[in-house]
Amino acid sequence: MRMTQTFVPVLKENPSEAQIVSHQLMLRAGLVRQTAAGIYAWLPLGFRVLQKIENIVRAEQDRAGAAELLMPTVQAADLWRKSGRYDAYGPEMLRLQDRHGRDMLYGPTNEEMLTDLFLSSATSYRDLPKMFYHIQWKFRDERRPRFGVMRGREFLMKDAYSFDLDEDGMRVSYNKQFQAYLRTFAALGLKAVPVRAPSGPIGGDLSHEFHVLADTGESAIFYDAALEDISIDDPDAVAKLSATYAMEEEEHEKVMDCPVPQERLLKRRGIEVGHIFAFGTKYTQSMGFTVQGRDGTQVHPLMGSYGVGVSRLMGAVIEACHDESGIVWPEQIAPYRVGIINLRQGDAGCDSLCDTIYERLTNAGVEVLYDDRDERGGAKFAGMDLIGLPWQLIVGPKGVSAGTVEVKNRRTGERTDLSLEDALEKVAG
Amino acid sequence: MRMTQTFVPVLKENPSEAQIVSHQLMLRAGLVRQTAAGIYAWLPLGFRVLQKIENIVRAEQDRAGAAELLMPTVQAADLWRKSGRYDAYGPEMLRLQDRHGRDMLYGPTNEEMLTDLFLSSATSYRDLPKMFYHIQWKFRDERRPRFGVMRGREFLMKDAYSFDLDEDGMRVSYNKQFQAYLRTFAALGLKAVPVRAPSGPIGGDLSHEFHVLADTGESAIFYDAALEDISIDDPDAVAKLSATYAMEEEEHEKVMDCPVPQERLLKRRGIEVGHIFAFGTKYTQSMGFTVQGRDGTQVHPLMGSYGVGVSRLMGAVIEACHDESGIVWPEQIAPYRVGIINLRQGDAGCDSLCDTIYERLTNAGVEVLYDDRDERGGAKFAGMDLIGLPWQLIVGPKGVSAGTVEVKNRRTGERTDLSLEDALEKVAG
Repeated sequence: MRMTQTFVPVLKENPSEAQIVSHQLMLRAGLVRQTAAGIYAWLPLGFRVLQKIENIVRAEQDRAGAAELLMPTVQAADLWRKSGRYDAYGPEMLRLQDRHGRDMLYGPTNEEMLTDLFLSSATSYRDLPKMFYHIQWKFRDERRPRFGVMRGREFLMKDAYSFDLDEDGMRVSYNKQFQAYLRTFAALGLKAVPVRAPSGPIGGDLSHEFHVLADTGESAIFYDAALEDISIDDPDAVAKLSATYAMEEEEHEKVMDCPVPQERLLKRRGIEVGHIFAFGTKYTQSMGFTVQGRDGTQVHPLMGSYGVGVSRLMGAVIEACHDESGIVWPEQIAPYRVGIINLRQGDAGCDSLCDTIYERLTNAGVEVLYDDRDERGGAKFAGMDLIGLPWQLIVGPKGVSAGTVEVKNRRTGERTDLSLEDALEKVAG
Repeated sequence: MRMTQTFVPVLKENPSEAQIVSHQLMLRAGLVRQTAAGIYAWLPLGFRVLQKIENIVRAEQDRAGAAELLMPTVQAADLWRKSGRYDAYGPEMLRLQDRHGRDMLYGPTNEEMLTDLFLSSATSYRDLPKMFYHIQWKFRDERRPRFGVMRGREFLMKDAYSFDLDEDGMRVSYNKQFQAYLRTFAALGLKAVPVRAPSGPIGGDLSHEFHVLADTGESAIFYDAALEDISIDDPDAVAKLSATYAMEEEEHEKVMDCPVPQERLLKRRGIEVGHIFAFGTKYTQSMGFTVQGRDGTQVHPLMGSYGVGVSRLMGAVIEACHDESGIVWPEQIAPYRVGIINLRQGDAGCDSLCDTIYERLTNAGVEVLYDDRDERGGAKFAGMDLIGLPWQLIVGPKGVSAGTVEVKNRRTGERTDLSLEDALEKVAG
């Protein structure tokens, strides 16, 4: 993509409303723009990253055997009255009325809707187990939205739901999602710690939060250093991680006798990016759904629900992956892999070499952003560092004469002058 | 995908609430389920089709040079007060208040928001021309939602917006979108007629609707038979189509002297699936945005907006592509390419052959839905015809003994007994 054909409104100054680094960088790099308190438009670069994160989340849900569907954003209040949550939910629920005065709401989550969708068709044990997910916009009317997309009001969430016949089945489903979460965060290049959690308003006994480690994280977590030695490729990773001590500060402080020796107890800051719950028959009972069990009696299926904040993950990635010059994207979710900087736009030699590079990389299937703006070199350097693409190809009159292109690795800062062929090979990956 | 691992709740009977065939078939084939009046959940099969339609729309927008972004669903009322449309829009706008009592709305369209997003950053003629699009859920609170996703309240729309410096530029952008629409509908396997349209509430002079021809279409259109001879591959297709008479009935009746001789005037039924507008400075004036022109004076950019009903298109495709047994999907948007019917689930020979077929096609990248339910053959035949995948592979004890698989083409109904290898080759495409 040529920068003049898309829309990357980079800002030189830190916007005054942004308190944390991911929020500052997302605004400065032109990834998002706030359109109302806690509500964001995803500009072209930000949207590309969002799609890539979404696709990584999707791939791991598919692998876990969850079927994808898509539920609407607007829900009927009656569905929530059935479960008892319409009154319980509080002011974070965005309530509204349609033109006929019917009570509706903008879904903050979908336990009720999916339970109704699936169990009004399921009749027997043969329809179970089943796991579903969707990736859809949610709204939670935070009293004080802040930190950009980290605590926005309209946000993109992957929420999955499992239905099982018995407690053992529910744990199998729970562990499948646990595993999917470990894989998802690893695929995003993030180190995530699963933390035993109280279950909160969704209810139930078994629950973990996943925290991405970042110095700027909102919460402190305490965990056994042994946790860091557990590989997610270990087939018993879920069992081992579940058995390893990890708590959020507030919960940790309630623990009278911490089982972890002081020298092995780590304290780190984390950002919550996922939350999984197994809550049994909470909704199937309150909403009155049963299926025929193997012995012919009617049983309430047991459920779990599993959320990942897809849009929030972008903030978390940036908190974990940046330096003083800007974002340093992990390759797998960078909006483009390569940025071309033309130091003298309008110079025949520079333009021609940039066009060649752009076409050859594009034809080779490499995603390229070409800064073809009529701007000074300094602004282009700063902008490209800020945007944080993994590789930069810098084209100027000197290189054109010498027959070289400068290749810069954004993460290491290493710069090398290479022939065109070597430069293309280096960045193509 | 194995049918037992996903969720395809096919219905034997026509649901009483569905009046038109696409609505009936979408419910019966388990593509969607209504969750509130005019609001639908997209079940796994329906969601797959929706994604494929979305991707075809996306590809043609990208080709037209439009930059993709994503605007939120909830908008601040103040933005619409600026353009004057907050009061003008009427009861189809879903209005709401957040917890602080601020007026908000669920976006029915995005002219105001995108104008504000882009033009608050654009300063000069060098920032133009520019074209954007997004594919996002919209809400229009229809008084009487009906016909399933054809006239729903929450619906998925692709809306694009162009910004140009002058009238000529605006026409170039308009024609690019016109061309993109022709290509989009052709890629979906649909015959669409562009009809000169009054512009309605969006405003402006130049406007076309695109109608998919279907006997069950909601509106009647009149057009010159010469229109059918214009190929969309003709580089002058847009100019020729624009110059060819085509009107919706209501507009046609206002025409005093129809320029088309009676014998060349066709009357067909159509479904509106797209609408494009060029409305000039309507929003840039009302919202007070200018950029510096080439001569240094401040000018109001000229705009166009371009909508496609992505979710509605699924209904339109089914209206155009079905028979008495069910849906007949065009290959490019079928939820799966091949369906496997196991006529005797649990029989070792049948199960093994089905598993082999399933694995080989899946490994070859062919999308397969395997009906592995413990159901009678009759129900599986009817269900697979209803779902309408292009190819069926039917595996029964007789074939297993004879070493053959029955291949059925859903469109033609042709059935052939073939060896496994020939059957796989035939359906792989």
